[in-house]
Amino acid sequence: MTTALWDLAAGARVIDLAQPMRTGMPQSPNHPPFRMLLERRHGDLVRADGGSAANEMIVMGGHVGTHVDALAHVSQDGLVHGGRAAAPLQGAQGFADLGIDTFAPIVGRGVLLDVAGLHGVDCLDPGYQVTAQDLQRALVKAGVRLRAGDAILIGTGWSRRWEEKETFIGGAGAPGPGEDAARWLAAHRPRVVGAETIAFEHIPPGAGHARLPVHRILLVEEGINIVETMRLTELRQSGAAEFLLILNPLPIVGATGSPVRPLAVLPG
Amino acid sequence: MTTALWDLAAGARVIDLAQPMRTGMPQSPNHPPFRMLLERRHGDLVRADGGSAANEMIVMGGHVGTHVDALAHVSQDGLVHGGRAAAPLQGAQGFADLGIDTFAPIVGRGVLLDVAGLHGVDCLDPGYQVTAQDLQRALVKAGVRLRAGDAILIGTGWSRRWEEKETFIGGAGAPGPGEDAARWLAAHRPRVVGAETIAFEHIPPGAGHARLPVHRILLVEEGINIVETMRLTELRQSGAAEFLLILNPLPIVGATGSPVRPLAVLPG
Amino acid sequence: MTTALWDLAAGARVIDLAQPMRTGMPQSPNHPPFRMLLERRHGDLVRADGGSAANEMIVMGGHVGTHVDALAHVSQDGLVHGGRAAAPLQGAQGFADLGIDTFAPIVGRGVLLDVAGLHGVDCLDPGYQVTAQDLQRALVKAGVRLRAGDAILIGTGWSRRWEEKETFIGGAGAPGPGEDAARWLAAHRPRVVGAETIAFEHIPPGAGHARLPVHRILLVEEGINIVETMRLTELRQSGAAEFLLILNPLPIVGATGSPVRPLAVLPG
Amino acid sequence: MTTALWDLAAGARVIDLAQPMRTGMPQSPNHPPFRMLLERRHGDLVRADGGSAANEMIVMGGHVGTHVDALAHVSQDGLVHGGRAAAPLQGAQGFADLGIDTFAPIVGRGVLLDVAGLHGVDCLDPGYQVTAQDLQRALVKAGVRLRAGDAILIGTGWSRRWEEKETFIGGAGAPGPGEDAARWLAAHRPRVVGAETIAFEHIPPGAGHARLPVHRILLVEEGINIVETMRLTELRQSGAAEFLLILNPLPIVGATGSPVRPLAVLPG
Repeated sequence: MTTALWDLAAGARVIDLAQPMRTGMPQSPNHPPFRMLLERRHGDLVRADGGSAANEMIVMGGHVGTHVDALAHVSQDGLVHGGRAAAPLQGAQGFADLGIDTFAPIVGRGVLLDVAGLHGVDCLDPGYQVTAQDLQRALVKAGVRLRAGDAILIGTGWSRRWEEKETFIGGAGAPGPGEDAARWLAAHRPRVVGAETIAFEHIPPGAGHARLPVHRILLVEEGINIVETMRLTELRQSGAAEFLLILNPLPIVGATGSPVRPLAVLPG
Repeated sequence: MTTALWDLAAGARVIDLAQPMRTGMPQSPNHPPFRMLLERRHGDLVRADGGSAANEMIVMGGHVGTHVDALAHVSQDGLVHGGRAAAPLQGAQGFADLGIDTFAPIVGRGVLLDVAGLHGVDCLDPGYQVTAQDLQRALVKAGVRLRAGDAILIGTGWSRRWEEKETFIGGAGAPGPGEDAARWLAAHRPRVVGAETIAFEHIPPGAGHARLPVHRILLVEEGINIVETMRLTELRQSGAAEFLLILNPLPIVGATGSPVRPLAVLPG
Repeated sequence: MTTALWDLAAGARVIDLAQPMRTGMPQSPNHPPFRMLLERRHGDLVRADGGSAANEMIVMGGHVGTHVDALAHVSQDGLVHGGRAAAPLQGAQGFADLGIDTFAPIVGRGVLLDVAGLHGVDCLDPGYQVTAQDLQRALVKAGVRLRAGDAILIGTGWSRRWEEKETFIGGAGAPGPGEDAARWLAAHRPRVVGAETIAFEHIPPGAGHARLPVHRILLVEEGINIVETMRLTELRQSGAAEFLLILNPLPIVGATGSPVRPLAVLPG
Repeated sequence: MTTALWDLAAGARVIDLAQPMRTGMPQSPNHPPFRMLLERRHGDLVRADGGSAANEMIVMGGHVGTHVDALAHVSQDGLVHGGRAAAPLQGAQGFADLGIDTFAPIVGRGVLLDVAGLHGVDCLDPGYQVTAQDLQRALVKAGVRLRAGDAILIGTGWSRRWEEKETFIGGAGAPGPGEDAARWLAAHRPRVVGAETIAFEHIPPGAGHARLPVHRILLVEEGINIVETMRLTELRQSGAAEFLLILNPLPIVGATGSPVRPLAVLPG
């Protein structure tokens, strides 16, 4: 290697793919709500030398904000990925295996399949179901080839609805992949897939999170992790189809998911 | 660029610089303790199609596990970095400025100054004060030059004491930089500095966290963020002095700190 | 005393005045939501002798479920009750004075003024403002005299809407005392007042909790604590105007409020 | 009844039997630690009319401070009280039965058996095991008769150690009833028993909470609830053997325990 990684990085463009985390932000009602509040403020306890420290408490579910689903998150007929019984894995310290701590951080190739862009819209309709054909056409349009181990991100434009809380959480449905799209993704053997909505699913209007077939296919059957609630607006606008994706959830031992701050790095 | 970043990354070695997060792990008693517990387990609520999801609740301070200190964390004589009054910045939503959300993620050069290695030990003594001379000598030994904007990590070997909870939290002191070392660091204009202990300070035996002069110098006077409780064992063992550092704390709006999972990327 | 208190109590009727506390129950959106989840379940950790213990974590605001407002809860123009500046009293451990721990538990006389009953309805309309005249007429109807130090409870029937979450939290308004009613109450020098709604206020449809004049009058000006979200249905149905009220909030040092399980004891 | 309950109460003496709750107070390390912190402070958000409200967040286990153990808390060989299997009762909303919400509030007779007083000491030694004989002798000394349905409190003097955190949590053991004392208690059919220590058990020095035979006998076999961490100093000093006990834990649906503020009411 003639040029060091860090010299390449120095000229690169880093795009933040996380939504900001704050009390009241949109999230799935199935999970403990995020809340951050200061405990000590400056001035509460001033040391003799005039110094003071402020700190906070954070309460949240593992699936709030931009986050990664661990394989332990979903089971089917009592089994998690690999056909293992779920019950013996779970306990007071979380999951003895398949927790988010078993997900190796990714520093690798990411590919964006911009389905909203394919359809010439800023944001897909709430009830839109992303199909295998959409993904195939977006791939052709992107002009890249997928490789095993890639991270595949689907652009739906939903990030733009972040400020519209009720809409964002899918009250009127949310766009996302259907089962055939999930099969298409799995066939390309990605390490991880991701998108902008709270659930990496097609949520028909009024359906809520009652059925999660794509989670079953990816997490249980295929062993492919999922990133949700990503902010892809800037990446979509960059026009880049390929990038270096950094995905390093917190190593919370035994948890079924963790917030994460994914980054896309584009050549300078 | 002839070789894509992601192709370089494919051959690279990624070293995880975070300690695992679990209930009961060592942390500063000044901060809300980390706790993760499952809320729903598989089998609690099985959908008609046989699917089931598990999830958790996480409670923690912003300064638990491996974490980044925001500039808002410390004040001196009522002022935070830039000579601004702390009081008007803090409120029910945290800090209106200088919170961890204002820290731009780093994908850049990191340099390891292995002071424990310099002294030929696996781990420095609890009460050891890292001096400017230590850092200068470690730099010479590393054979690299520092540049403005680097991330400078100090190796003390303290990561190895992680499993010894009372020791790790500094009951008998903890090794770390003194004031002259902080001045030396600041003079090289790093974007961030980091180390393995809970506090980036020299903690004499029995002293606790009563005085934090290095925090004052770095956070308040110099505007340089600090990473604490890093796991540097593997990086030290690699012998690498330079690496690509990834440092992307959660974008928790207004918080004084955030857990993070830093990565060091070494050429393959 | 010829008959012991406990013998009297043995024949008495005890009416529970608290709403049940569970995740998802109605509460003010201004306060951290109540959440209870099991941490250890039976079977997670079985001792050698076959014994096992289950436990839970509880997260909540001080103003969730049936609760008492401490005098520290509200300030006007920077002053809390007694004309004291609020700022110096508040810190990392809560309030140095006027917190809920300074509220002496009540075992004393309670009087129910059933305004809903006065109007011949099960539940007052959402936007109904309880007036001083209502209270005076309800008092006459009750056939009792108020004494200084009594606990005065206002029956609005709102407890019956508990299961209708959006309604209960006042989306379409909530019945409650207006300012003249608050003045009437204060003139009778009760130790505490209470009612069934989330806020002891008249909330016009669509108004939310933007104005809280009754809180100002009672907590700040008069030093009279408030009990909110009481369940008064059974007490109203008993027809009792007088009873022994037990009101013993948790002694949470420095908190602005605490959940409580008030009891009304009626002669057998 | 010639004199109303509330008139009797007006002349009565009310003794608070709860320890104050604050961040850092002594509690069992097996349970989520209590923490209370302000979220909004006065001045954070001042309404146009000059009003401001402060509030807090509370995080805790169900077994912190003075608290009541629900029958669901302990199982033996997979069974809870009544020989029912524990597993099917527990889920994401806690226990479907035997939770603390199924404990009817007590307003009834309490009897204090002052074992410390019997031995002429302010506080029993840490490793002291309270025997059936102790209880019988204390009963004789008290000069009262036990009746089915009473609340029986055991005075050990341990409340006095509250400020000595490490001692209080039993680092060097804690005084409490052994198995024969538990059998003696159960034979008198109390509704509830209580004491001053964190666990209603004899904890030998260094033993921790590894064996809890008294919990098994009372909660599992006999269906008798337990109150722990009571503050009995003032009640012991009063010399009263009989009193009206009020015990009304929060109605937290499905929880294995709840903080409580018990009161003893003595004739005036």
